[in-house]
Amino acid sequence: MISINEESNLYKQIAQQIVSLIEQKALKVGDKVPSLRKLSNHYNVSIGTVLQAYHLLEEQRFIEARPQSGYFVKVRSNKLPAEPKVSDPIVKATKISLIELSIKMMLATQRQDIIQLGAAIPNPELLPTHSLNRSMASIGRRLGKKLNSYDSPPGNETLRTQVALKMMEAGCTLTPDQIVTTCGGQEALNLCLRAVAKAGDTIAIESPTFHGILQIIESLGMQALELPTCPRDGVDLDVLQTAIKKQQVKACLFVTNFSNPLGSCMPDEKKQQLVEILRAKEIPLIEDDIYGDLSFSASRPKTAKAFDKEGLVLLCSSFSKTLAPSYRVGWVAPGRFKEKVMSLKFINTIATATLPQLAIADFLATGGYQRYLRRICKTYSHQVALMTEAIGRFFPDETKVTRPSGGFILWVELPKQMDALELYERALLEKISIAPGHIFSATGKYSNFIRLNCGHQWSDTVERAISKLGQIIYKLY
Amino acid sequence: MISINEESNLYKQIAQQIVSLIEQKALKVGDKVPSLRKLSNHYNVSIGTVLQAYHLLEEQRFIEARPQSGYFVKVRSNKLPAEPKVSDPIVKATKISLIELSIKMMLATQRQDIIQLGAAIPNPELLPTHSLNRSMASIGRRLGKKLNSYDSPPGNETLRTQVALKMMEAGCTLTPDQIVTTCGGQEALNLCLRAVAKAGDTIAIESPTFHGILQIIESLGMQALELPTCPRDGVDLDVLQTAIKKQQVKACLFVTNFSNPLGSCMPDEKKQQLVEILRAKEIPLIEDDIYGDLSFSASRPKTAKAFDKEGLVLLCSSFSKTLAPSYRVGWVAPGRFKEKVMSLKFINTIATATLPQLAIADFLATGGYQRYLRRICKTYSHQVALMTEAIGRFFPDETKVTRPSGGFILWVELPKQMDALELYERALLEKISIAPGHIFSATGKYSNFIRLNCGHQWSDTVERAISKLGQIIYKLY
Repeated sequence: MISINEESNLYKQIAQQIVSLIEQKALKVGDKVPSLRKLSNHYNVSIGTVLQAYHLLEEQRFIEARPQSGYFVKVRSNKLPAEPKVSDPIVKATKISLIELSIKMMLATQRQDIIQLGAAIPNPELLPTHSLNRSMASIGRRLGKKLNSYDSPPGNETLRTQVALKMMEAGCTLTPDQIVTTCGGQEALNLCLRAVAKAGDTIAIESPTFHGILQIIESLGMQALELPTCPRDGVDLDVLQTAIKKQQVKACLFVTNFSNPLGSCMPDEKKQQLVEILRAKEIPLIEDDIYGDLSFSASRPKTAKAFDKEGLVLLCSSFSKTLAPSYRVGWVAPGRFKEKVMSLKFINTIATATLPQLAIADFLATGGYQRYLRRICKTYSHQVALMTEAIGRFFPDETKVTRPSGGFILWVELPKQMDALELYERALLEKISIAPGHIFSATGKYSNFIRLNCGHQWSDTVERAISKLGQIIYKLY
Repeated sequence: MISINEESNLYKQIAQQIVSLIEQKALKVGDKVPSLRKLSNHYNVSIGTVLQAYHLLEEQRFIEARPQSGYFVKVRSNKLPAEPKVSDPIVKATKISLIELSIKMMLATQRQDIIQLGAAIPNPELLPTHSLNRSMASIGRRLGKKLNSYDSPPGNETLRTQVALKMMEAGCTLTPDQIVTTCGGQEALNLCLRAVAKAGDTIAIESPTFHGILQIIESLGMQALELPTCPRDGVDLDVLQTAIKKQQVKACLFVTNFSNPLGSCMPDEKKQQLVEILRAKEIPLIEDDIYGDLSFSASRPKTAKAFDKEGLVLLCSSFSKTLAPSYRVGWVAPGRFKEKVMSLKFINTIATATLPQLAIADFLATGGYQRYLRRICKTYSHQVALMTEAIGRFFPDETKVTRPSGGFILWVELPKQMDALELYERALLEKISIAPGHIFSATGKYSNFIRLNCGHQWSDTVERAISKLGQIIYKLY
């Protein structure tokens, strides 16, 4: 029985319960929804009230009536928007000057009163914070004094051991001493870029790519070479090969699995090919696998590092997208650049905070991490699907949306004439943050794109935000 | 009454109790030690046993007999080694190439089985780790989910507020929004140097200076201009003024209070003068105040920032030397460079771990920090005095030692012909780590100097280590 708060809202409450059943996959696409009579008995309400609920669900496109058969959970992907094409950047080393815009934007959009569709953040409600904090408290109590020193590079051994074990699933045979822990994935990327290149050098990257990567490259005075990238399979290796031949590429920095913002996942054979291409020229690959654990399918994809026999791949990751952005724990397996990366880590921040490293190690060691991943990946898959569907409903028909197979980010191509920066400004007035395409490339190619964060539990609020965005877009159209 | 474990060791136990009384200042220098008869009654032992104890204490130079008066606590500074002179570096912008040596050294000497006289670290036994960890546990339990997001720049507001309040004592009128929190003081220094200078620029520093500062300057491709520095009053301002006139100094980076390794503390009027000199030329001063709270006298010294009206001083500090090296919490008040520092913080590590920031803020807010400081400063003052005295006893007569008025570091000048690197190697074989002077300058000036850490509770082990170092020095002599 549901509790009856307000008589008039009864049908809404019934509808909400059906939605919950669908979201929890107790009712799957194509399933028959319980009959009017059954529900009217179950909830002890009139058939009319149940019918009202069903009409609402029809309106919201959760269910459909089939003649002489009853109501069925709808294939919500019926009218999904199309997928964007492979990107087509100008393949030319470019000096970046995006820092000011992009950081101002990211900081402004992190206010508490705003619906966060801009930053790529998991919703705190979905994170296993209590387990982690409890673990941290217990370790702090038990080991207290013993732990209060600099956990100098390569960093906490317990965590490095757990990371090495965990990465076996990604095809990596790492030993703990091949890993260096860092203050989040961002520090790892900084250290790696500084270890393999210097100011003036050219770094090959995906187009579009994570704005944080562009910011690091700019802040270090390096240049970016943006490569065409397929929203499904990642970077175009033919163009990469040509680029390598034509000019000096000092290093590559690719987000191989569920990239940000494209969501692309390079097939494992392609990763192997990539590693071979780069090996021939002794070009280091900085591989950002920060979303790699968030696969929507049963097994997680491999990393390029799995195919690296020469120590040329510097594999970076963190727990900020999976467990705890606030813990600032990341790591890198820098291959042959380990000494350099360790030195730079020591110079940059000396050490990573000890207790956060140990709490995460504990969560991994006790199996909590794997259990949590199984649950959260389903949730993200679901949220990404619902967001995609909502975009299909509320945005203009020409809108295109990526089909990520992991992570919680969507890359949305709006009609050509749209200016995402204007959309950003207008949305902010409505307390909705989005990330405009401008900050994901130095080429200015993506001014009609936006990135949306699906890290939030799907709710009326999120749905209304998408609907509102749609309205603004139509106005600007 | 003392407990009698072994009859034969009775006099040693009595002696130890007297030493404790002296160390806790229940008995001060010049005080009369209780008479033979009084102690014999008190401990219920023979006068002969007490006399034995007194003889031992005489041998150990804790007390002295005065004819017809009895025994007195000795002025242990009687035979203190002399103080080193003002340093005399070549005042010329120099490229540094010390990273490899110094980092290898610092990492090697952080092994568990070694007596840590090398790294400048407070002994974990002396830190208020339990209070801090308890605080962190409680905050984590209470606020859990709310806190698990990126604590983006400028960083945690609760901590920034506490830092602003705390720094009033150092003469600073800071508001929380003028402060940016960082992953330790080392990150603060990195961000500041990158905010005010670029590769090729010249940074004026003290000579000798903290090896970490030299490493940052080297890693950023900048040059160092080492200035003569007085072990008491800090950098020579006349030479600084001449240097500024003669060549382009892009910024200064000075440890104004209880510097590392000299222990120098620039008098407040001199700080004001320094700020004025730099203001005339619009040269930013990065002020490292990491030891500023560890003053041996009742009041803590001001910072140069206290005299800064133009926002040209970037004041850096952290809680790694006072509370928790393992928490990695530092901060910077970057003055007019705040936007730049915030951007670089975002690019470098995105955010600082949240719970460690809040635990420290709590310790400050509840007065725990001030109480702890009062206690620990006495301890460090005492340990520095005992270490100085022990050096006087065990090292050659020509040895010179600084007289810091805060912090827990001694800078020791050995006889000219000594090679500190050789001493470092030999000491390591005896499981003693020291920091050789080589890593504190790019000029090679300090090859017969070593830095000693007095952060450890004084004990037989530490005393034996100093004695052992003395023996090695005499052998190499």
